[in-house]
Amino acid sequence: MIHILFAAAPDRWAQYEHPLTRALDALGLDYVLSPEMDPAQVEYIVYAPNSGHDDFSLFPRARAVLNLWAGVENVVNNPTLTIPLARMVDDEGLTQGMVEWVTGHVLRHHLGMDAHIVNPDRRWVPVAPPLARDRPVTILGFGTLGQACGRALAGLGFEVTGWARSAKDVPGVRTLGGDDTLDTALAGAQIVVLLLPLTEATRNVLDARRLSLLAPGAVVLNPGRGPLIDDDALLAALDSGQVSHATLDVFRVEPLPQDHPFWAHPKVTVCPHIASETRPDSAARVIAENIRRGESGEPFLHLVDRAAGY
Amino acid sequence: MIHILFAAAPDRWAQYEHPLTRALDALGLDYVLSPEMDPAQVEYIVYAPNSGHDDFSLFPRARAVLNLWAGVENVVNNPTLTIPLARMVDDEGLTQGMVEWVTGHVLRHHLGMDAHIVNPDRRWVPVAPPLARDRPVTILGFGTLGQACGRALAGLGFEVTGWARSAKDVPGVRTLGGDDTLDTALAGAQIVVLLLPLTEATRNVLDARRLSLLAPGAVVLNPGRGPLIDDDALLAALDSGQVSHATLDVFRVEPLPQDHPFWAHPKVTVCPHIASETRPDSAARVIAENIRRGESGEPFLHLVDRAAGY
Repeated sequence: MIHILFAAAPDRWAQYEHPLTRALDALGLDYVLSPEMDPAQVEYIVYAPNSGHDDFSLFPRARAVLNLWAGVENVVNNPTLTIPLARMVDDEGLTQGMVEWVTGHVLRHHLGMDAHIVNPDRRWVPVAPPLARDRPVTILGFGTLGQACGRALAGLGFEVTGWARSAKDVPGVRTLGGDDTLDTALAGAQIVVLLLPLTEATRNVLDARRLSLLAPGAVVLNPGRGPLIDDDALLAALDSGQVSHATLDVFRVEPLPQDHPFWAHPKVTVCPHIASETRPDSAARVIAENIRRGESGEPFLHLVDRAAGY
Repeated sequence: MIHILFAAAPDRWAQYEHPLTRALDALGLDYVLSPEMDPAQVEYIVYAPNSGHDDFSLFPRARAVLNLWAGVENVVNNPTLTIPLARMVDDEGLTQGMVEWVTGHVLRHHLGMDAHIVNPDRRWVPVAPPLARDRPVTILGFGTLGQACGRALAGLGFEVTGWARSAKDVPGVRTLGGDDTLDTALAGAQIVVLLLPLTEATRNVLDARRLSLLAPGAVVLNPGRGPLIDDDALLAALDSGQVSHATLDVFRVEPLPQDHPFWAHPKVTVCPHIASETRPDSAARVIAENIRRGESGEPFLHLVDRAAGY
């Protein structure tokens, strides 16, 4: 009998109880799954950082923490966490949703849709946009999510550059790796997409200097993590025209406070952290597979590199 | 010496003179190209319907009319036209541009972007949209443009149905052909894209009855031809909620008159006929290739079926 604690906010239990049960049953596992459990019994912790659980030393038999979300910045540095930590890689749900959001907003800005969606003066200006092949798009962060977005955008004809700590190989995409190529990746980009993990190395990565490297009038999309951007530098770049628009899905504080200048800024689109979310059905299958692996002695999938922070 | 008349509105000459010259030179042709020419000398007519030329009997030596645009509804029934008529199939420019516009607006509606782009009340509603695989999209008109859009949308995961007069075979797409399957193609569609040629058979094809077949709250995209839609039926469907939004790029009269109800309707996005346009460089190569074919006795590309009307 495997003891699995569901440690997330209460409303998540309603979403995840049935998908997790189905996924665990499908693998033929013998288990107890509950949001309430004697800590001494717990073997696997299905985890979200806002669960209220932050002292992992209370779970002496626990074998792994299985994060429900892709980002682990709120748990990775927890000093009581000494067992393996896996992050969510939900290709079916989270990755696919991110591809849809990124592709959609890249096309929105590429096509200049906003001028047609909001057009109170009924202006008729029949100027077609350039083709995607003449629109350089740079993706910072080229792991699972970034590569999937890069492939989709390259497939539509965009001139894509993908940058990561170490260069990845993706056909049809210019890939760059390492700190010394970051400026090259940003230089002349007309659309920048932030999909980096949040670490001390990436905090405020898009600062005033790096914003100045972009093509004049560039667009910034942030579906990654709020603190990747220096907010004040972004506002200054929007006001100067160096950045023509920012579409932001993530923020330092969420929900974004009603008095934050992003809400009022005409060149900022605020999205309510919906670029992508883990989907219960597919995420449950990833969690169940990792529990099966733990029980059969196989290595866990998607283990976090604690030194790198993701 | 081949005599080529450029018969289009004057501003087009500025756009096309150099691309056509380059394309004709690249094929090694010996020619005269001009917007002014003795009609008795003309052998090829590079044509746009608003050129002012509508009596082709004035060109006794003309061998073909090479349309600059994809749509031929304003020339195909001209009784003085007795020589071959070719329409523009500009894969590099027109087709690619259409794929970008259709994919972009399908994603815009799929993701519910407008609620974030225009959000004066600063509402934060973190509900992620469904995935593309749960969004049925139907494309009416599945020729060059429709198939290219269908492939792009299927590649992003959408559940695509493509309907044409005769069924086409496109992997990953449900394809239907013939009048008796049109209702099936529309039934339950959440997004409909109109890419039909305008003929007597397709005029008002999206009428009140067919709009009622769509999923409640469906979205209509028309980058094809204005008269494909019964405008009054569309307005009624928008007002009833059967259609939640229409994004229209083409209209019976263009520019759309300032007092047309589409401009004022909160559920209509008016685009100024920019979904796609022939791009001078790539279109010029298509025209030059057809002239080369005419001179060497090879069959012309993209000949219009005069009986079908496209």
